Amino acid sequence: MSEPVRFYFDFSSPYSYFAAAKIDETCESLGREVTWKPFLLGALFQITGSKPLTETPLKGDYCRNDWERLGRYMNLPWTLPDPFPIPTQAAARAFYWLDDKDPVLAKKFAREAFMAYFGRGMDIRSGDAVAELAAPLGVDHAELAAALGDEKVKQRLKDETQAAIDAGVFGAPYFIVDGEGLWGSDRMWMIRRWIERGGW
Amino acid sequence: MSEPVRFYFDFSSPYSYFAAAKIDETCESLGREVTWKPFLLGALFQITGSKPLTETPLKGDYCRNDWERLGRYMNLPWTLPDPFPIPTQAAARAFYWLDDKDPVLAKKFAREAFMAYFGRGMDIRSGDAVAELAAPLGVDHAELAAALGDEKVKQRLKDETQAAIDAGVFGAPYFIVDGEGLWGSDRMWMIRRWIERGGW
Repeated sequence: MSEPVRFYFDFSSPYSYFAAAKIDETCESLGREVTWKPFLLGALFQITGSKPLTETPLKGDYCRNDWERLGRYMNLPWTLPDPFPIPTQAAARAFYWLDDKDPVLAKKFAREAFMAYFGRGMDIRSGDAVAELAAPLGVDHAELAAALGDEKVKQRLKDETQAAIDAGVFGAPYFIVDGEGLWGSDRMWMIRRWIERGGW
Repeated sequence: MSEPVRFYFDFSSPYSYFAAAKIDETCESLGREVTWKPFLLGALFQITGSKPLTETPLKGDYCRNDWERLGRYMNLPWTLPDPFPIPTQAAARAFYWLDDKDPVLAKKFAREAFMAYFGRGMDIRSGDAVAELAAPLGVDHAELAAALGDEKVKQRLKDETQAAIDAGVFGAPYFIVDGEGLWGSDRMWMIRRWIERGGW
């Protein structure tokens, strides 16, 4: 059995939102599982010297248009939330806490969080907002709120972010398939090709 | 008759090299011409605050691997030249000087320059190197060498670079099809789609 494809993302990354909508279907149709790995893009930007896309001259305007047309093309709701970008510790911590109990539930939560933020423009920064999103999935509000403040849960996200950096991740979305890194939602075709042929 | 697709690039951009190998075929098979527009990426980087890819932590290693696999995938010779990146004033000035006389010849020269630099690792910085590349295409060595020092030819490249910035170009390769900007060699599929459907 081949290793799952790893999907690294930040809940505040628009291109991760688009990738999240099709990565499982893309890989599973070829018999490959996908492991989701949220991390904090801000920690990476400190290393690479990158800035949020909307704060980069010229590129910011381009991206605003690009996200809109990708939303239309993929038939996905799209809104540029305000505030954007945001710190996503709460959502990412919630993800790992859920993932340890039930990976399927964790992915459901992650899709809800993406849809809330980029589909409806909901501010998902707070622990309360995150717990509110998880509640309809059967997650106890008080239990999740408590977990988000737990030192072990906080440390887990720090460790996962460091592990992403150690694996060579420098942006989001980023995929690793059999050790081969692929950056960007535009590279799904290369993931498919790798799974099908094991090479370029 | 629809406007040509504009292809903005820098002769020192690896992803432009890969794009240059298929942009004409891609568009012409759909009945669209392509106008090539070399410019100086360094001038843009001063605005966007970007750095050359190989000088960006993490991303540099990724790109080295990515260029190799793209070369294998596209069956194109690939070498990371030394020095890299380089200032490409000479090649870009030569291009526009030729383009005014014969756009087909200018494209032939551009393909030669890309292949010399990224296919064989030849240093194409100097006017002499550029004139040497153009000679087999029937371009007089002395005449081209003189043109490269001509103030009008120098100004032309400055104007073209400024025009690229004014058009929203912030990286290379960059394409404009009917006013719609597309960044990166990964976006050929979107160019095809636009030409075929006129929308997303």
